[in-house]
Amino acid sequence: MALAARLNACQLAEMAEITKPKAAISGPTPHDDWYGLREGEVVVALPDAFDASLYYIGRIRTPWRRREDCPKNARESDAVCTVELDPRWAQALTGLDSVSHVVLLYWMDKARRDLVLQSPRHYAERRGTFALRSPARPNPIAVSVARLVRIEDNRLIVVGLDCLDNTPLLDIKPYFASTDSVPDAQVGWHAEKAR
Amino acid sequence: MALAARLNACQLAEMAEITKPKAAISGPTPHDDWYGLREGEVVVALPDAFDASLYYIGRIRTPWRRREDCPKNARESDAVCTVELDPRWAQALTGLDSVSHVVLLYWMDKARRDLVLQSPRHYAERRGTFALRSPARPNPIAVSVARLVRIEDNRLIVVGLDCLDNTPLLDIKPYFASTDSVPDAQVGWHAEKAR
Repeated sequence: MALAARLNACQLAEMAEITKPKAAISGPTPHDDWYGLREGEVVVALPDAFDASLYYIGRIRTPWRRREDCPKNARESDAVCTVELDPRWAQALTGLDSVSHVVLLYWMDKARRDLVLQSPRHYAERRGTFALRSPARPNPIAVSVARLVRIEDNRLIVVGLDCLDNTPLLDIKPYFASTDSVPDAQVGWHAEKAR
Repeated sequence: MALAARLNACQLAEMAEITKPKAAISGPTPHDDWYGLREGEVVVALPDAFDASLYYIGRIRTPWRRREDCPKNARESDAVCTVELDPRWAQALTGLDSVSHVVLLYWMDKARRDLVLQSPRHYAERRGTFALRSPARPNPIAVSVARLVRIEDNRLIVVGLDCLDNTPLLDIKPYFASTDSVPDAQVGWHAEKAR
């Protein structure tokens, strides 16, 4: 809880003044899945300043209020979720109703950003942050592909998300199979695990 | 050029003080493809403050120095590009060598962020920002899928990018066909155009 408070203070500071992220937290605090470190996990000192900034353009409404309730991945759930776009941007949806799938970018605002080696709960081995889809990463931006059911004013009704309720939305893009779909892509370490 | 200078000033302001984006630019300045407006394009006033901030974690090196030299999309080019990760994050690549494809997120730092209706050069019709993959969007984050050729220390050698040389890198993720690949996804407006 202390670490959670630190992260929130840091996020507030981003909006209010020159942003000097706190020094990396180095002591392991096992069993704290959200903010703490597991045995063997490694953090680095964060850079002294940020380089660019984001607007939250809306919120994603899902049935999941706690991380342990979220599906392990998006294909595990048929839950219908709602993307609530800030009315400011509503005109930017023009023409999106003709797409079957959207790429949604959202901000995992509760994740720590200094982890380079991670030991996710459901994997035995420790792996690098960039080999994982874990929320904990230098820029905690999630990329999810969702099926677009319909658009109602400034709301998108979609299927295929696994994030927490009220997650901040960053972007909506049309999914192009020609460039976004690679059906035969392999993640070697994951395939070995599954065998 | 005046607009370009304004954008750059705004970006600098992000790092230095409370961020009050400039008021939206309303006058059309046709024929200025990067920063200006085309006939019929619509902008909105940007929010008064940013909500979160990003670290540049590296740079993408490509053969293209000017926008007009970039391939129209990533599948049009076999050029080998290099993702240069800041050594700070190098350990986070552990285990990534077993993946065939990566999702790269990068920051299109020259794009304007206030456009809601756009008239791209190569399309006759005006469309909403979220129905397009244009760099101009509230949060100019690009998502590209690239084939990973190999990793050399803190550098990824990849094929399948279309961005400008020196583009700031935001994230590297493994591409999971199980959740990221939708081979039969449709973009209706684009299919009609192609017919």
